[in-house]
Amino acid sequence: MDTVKVIEIKKSVFEDNEKDAAGLRKELKDKGVYLLNLMSSPGSGKTTTLIRTINLLRDKISIAVMEADIDSDVDAIKIKEATGIQSIQLHTGGMCHLDAEMTRQGLDNVDMKGLDLVILENVGNLVCPAEFDTGACRNAMILSVPEGHDKPLKYPLMFSVCDLVIVNKIDVLPYFDFDLEKCKEYVHMRNPKAQVIPICAKTGEGVEKVAEWLLTEVKNWKNK
Amino acid sequence: MDTVKVIEIKKSVFEDNEKDAAGLRKELKDKGVYLLNLMSSPGSGKTTTLIRTINLLRDKISIAVMEADIDSDVDAIKIKEATGIQSIQLHTGGMCHLDAEMTRQGLDNVDMKGLDLVILENVGNLVCPAEFDTGACRNAMILSVPEGHDKPLKYPLMFSVCDLVIVNKIDVLPYFDFDLEKCKEYVHMRNPKAQVIPICAKTGEGVEKVAEWLLTEVKNWKNK
Repeated sequence: MDTVKVIEIKKSVFEDNEKDAAGLRKELKDKGVYLLNLMSSPGSGKTTTLIRTINLLRDKISIAVMEADIDSDVDAIKIKEATGIQSIQLHTGGMCHLDAEMTRQGLDNVDMKGLDLVILENVGNLVCPAEFDTGACRNAMILSVPEGHDKPLKYPLMFSVCDLVIVNKIDVLPYFDFDLEKCKEYVHMRNPKAQVIPICAKTGEGVEKVAEWLLTEVKNWKNK
Repeated sequence: MDTVKVIEIKKSVFEDNEKDAAGLRKELKDKGVYLLNLMSSPGSGKTTTLIRTINLLRDKISIAVMEADIDSDVDAIKIKEATGIQSIQLHTGGMCHLDAEMTRQGLDNVDMKGLDLVILENVGNLVCPAEFDTGACRNAMILSVPEGHDKPLKYPLMFSVCDLVIVNKIDVLPYFDFDLEKCKEYVHMRNPKAQVIPICAKTGEGVEKVAEWLLTEVKNWKNK
């Protein structure tokens, strides 16, 4: 089994997260690197979705991944084995979210040379990560079919801060009471501009749309 | 549609949560009321499981429910309509967990006369709620099949503090790579004494075992 770099993230000592986040975003802009913050509940399929998306994009752009987890290293190893890209593990030591300073601690351990895109897989949690700007260019989240289409009603902030909502596990739609149209309606109540892309990360269905969205984002970021 | 009492919970001003929790537990003991703290990820089926369990127990013991949610009232209304029992909604105002003082604010709004059992449905989150003793007699959690059997590896504290792990949505086991035996093994790595009960809240399969566990717990609490 591959080993990956594991970074023990320390709690931020800086108080002004918004200022830190804006500063980090400016630095990323100067370097021409796009940072995506990917959030979701535990078990929604973040890692599998990432592997599929990265494999569609890795010949076009240079990508690295930072996997945030409370304790384990399984996700970073899985990504490295399945895609071959630069993948590091961030241990949050029990912390339920990442802020801009914690994200920077992770980025300090990424080789940024020639890089176009860094994807941060945030801690599995629909509440706290939404409250902290990580300094990413965009926030995206995954809602999986078994969680139910009512989640934008119950976790309003998460859906307000995300510009892309990936609806995963559409292969099991026949077995759950999940209404995709209602889901889109609820998402747009929180963020009218959010894009909703239904996928099945297991089979790859729809993932090319996520890859396209991300590629356009990265190109626009570099040319803006 | 029924309306329910909605309580806006304020952030605790007290610092010593462990002391508060122990104090609350003692009070509950004196009153002969058992408090269960039920936790899980968003969308794991807490409310449906509760409705099934309550309907099996409501002729035997007197039950009330406190539904904690960031913003919405849908769960408390659903419980009240489906079971007829006392059901109140706690709004956490963005907070990702409940502590003992917040739980007490909720209990102050419950009619405790003749009550045997109060179930607290905590905020949907596998991280933060595990860190705060609510003053409950026991912690239980629901892990649903689509979330994956590896969750005890990734959210160690949650599985360490729970004495009952309900594995929900076993009706969809054929469509997911979920290994029930591996799940039990991982749960027992975190808490060797934890009981694991597989159920399907949608059809009711296995829920009688949850009801039995809870009934025994309530009786033992009163007689201890």
